[in-house]
Amino acid sequence: MAGNANGGKTKPRERIVSAACTLFRENGIRATGVEAIAEAADTNKMTLYRHFGSKDELICEALKCISDRHSAFWDRLASDFPSDSRRRLLAWVELRAASLVEEPYGCDISNAAVELKETGHPAHAVIEQVKAAQHRQLTDLCAAAGTRDPELLANSLALLMEGARVSRCVSGPDGPSREFSRACYAVIEALSNADTVN
Amino acid sequence: MAGNANGGKTKPRERIVSAACTLFRENGIRATGVEAIAEAADTNKMTLYRHFGSKDELICEALKCISDRHSAFWDRLASDFPSDSRRRLLAWVELRAASLVEEPYGCDISNAAVELKETGHPAHAVIEQVKAAQHRQLTDLCAAAGTRDPELLANSLALLMEGARVSRCVSGPDGPSREFSRACYAVIEALSNADTVN
Repeated sequence: MAGNANGGKTKPRERIVSAACTLFRENGIRATGVEAIAEAADTNKMTLYRHFGSKDELICEALKCISDRHSAFWDRLASDFPSDSRRRLLAWVELRAASLVEEPYGCDISNAAVELKETGHPAHAVIEQVKAAQHRQLTDLCAAAGTRDPELLANSLALLMEGARVSRCVSGPDGPSREFSRACYAVIEALSNADTVN
Repeated sequence: MAGNANGGKTKPRERIVSAACTLFRENGIRATGVEAIAEAADTNKMTLYRHFGSKDELICEALKCISDRHSAFWDRLASDFPSDSRRRLLAWVELRAASLVEEPYGCDISNAAVELKETGHPAHAVIEQVKAAQHRQLTDLCAAAGTRDPELLANSLALLMEGARVSRCVSGPDGPSREFSRACYAVIEALSNADTVN
């Protein structure tokens, strides 16, 4: 149970969000009921609904919490490689490759988009915002690294990453995702040195 | 309603599978109940359960039906470009780019993997089989096209495609998926002409 790991040291609200993140990731958003989340967070449904008016509100809060972790990822990249953008870009590949192993369930944000298809779901705005922010950072990094077509490179790397996370989930560690890093290096090299690709 | 388009001309079993495919795709597998499928197929739950012992069985049948469409895609590629493998590879890119527009919900098979996380779900075997078969065909095509590292190219293209389908679903048509074709061409060019990528 996700919340139990906290041993009651954190506040109920934080335990609920943490338990929701874990259960949504491992079992899916729709497959996870509020009762299971409350139980995993060592609390009850009444407390859950006092903090979050609805399951949808809790879903949005869980996605924002995951987004904060993404921001921490970018902060770490910037602080580890403050001046060498090319090195930072290669570190992005390495860290993303590591995340494929550490997070076999794929991207929580993309998985939420796959699950929550209904028009007007409040999570869509959060998903859009998080993905757009991540993509801006990747495009800025590609531009800073002095590549020939930063936008094409950022889009290519974003597709490879998005694909690797899904593929890891669908076909396991021996599927196409095992070559994520080499695919990234190939496209970085292609867009650094070769002629314009049409 | 998906089944109504058939106007009662097809058999109940086919209408049920067709309705299931449509509703799973548009609303998600978990969000779709058997009642809604039966209604969309112009039949009833009792008939549905006579043909399929459970919703899980119907899910597997729907995935196999989608897999047959994938086989038709490969047959079409082979018959349109029987002798020129390089042209066939470029046609793969074009047809896949077109499918991003025609099928904005992404890959039904991958989406099923994202939704159906529970260990031992019978759909996992179908998903694995379909993805492995598709990947074999893509690897064979890359090898026939005379590229330097067919396996790396097939894996890179598979990741770009998988990523583009998710990204189209998550970030819409103006997101990274809009550059799917150019990303493919860049990687095809890189692995056709350049030196070995480490």
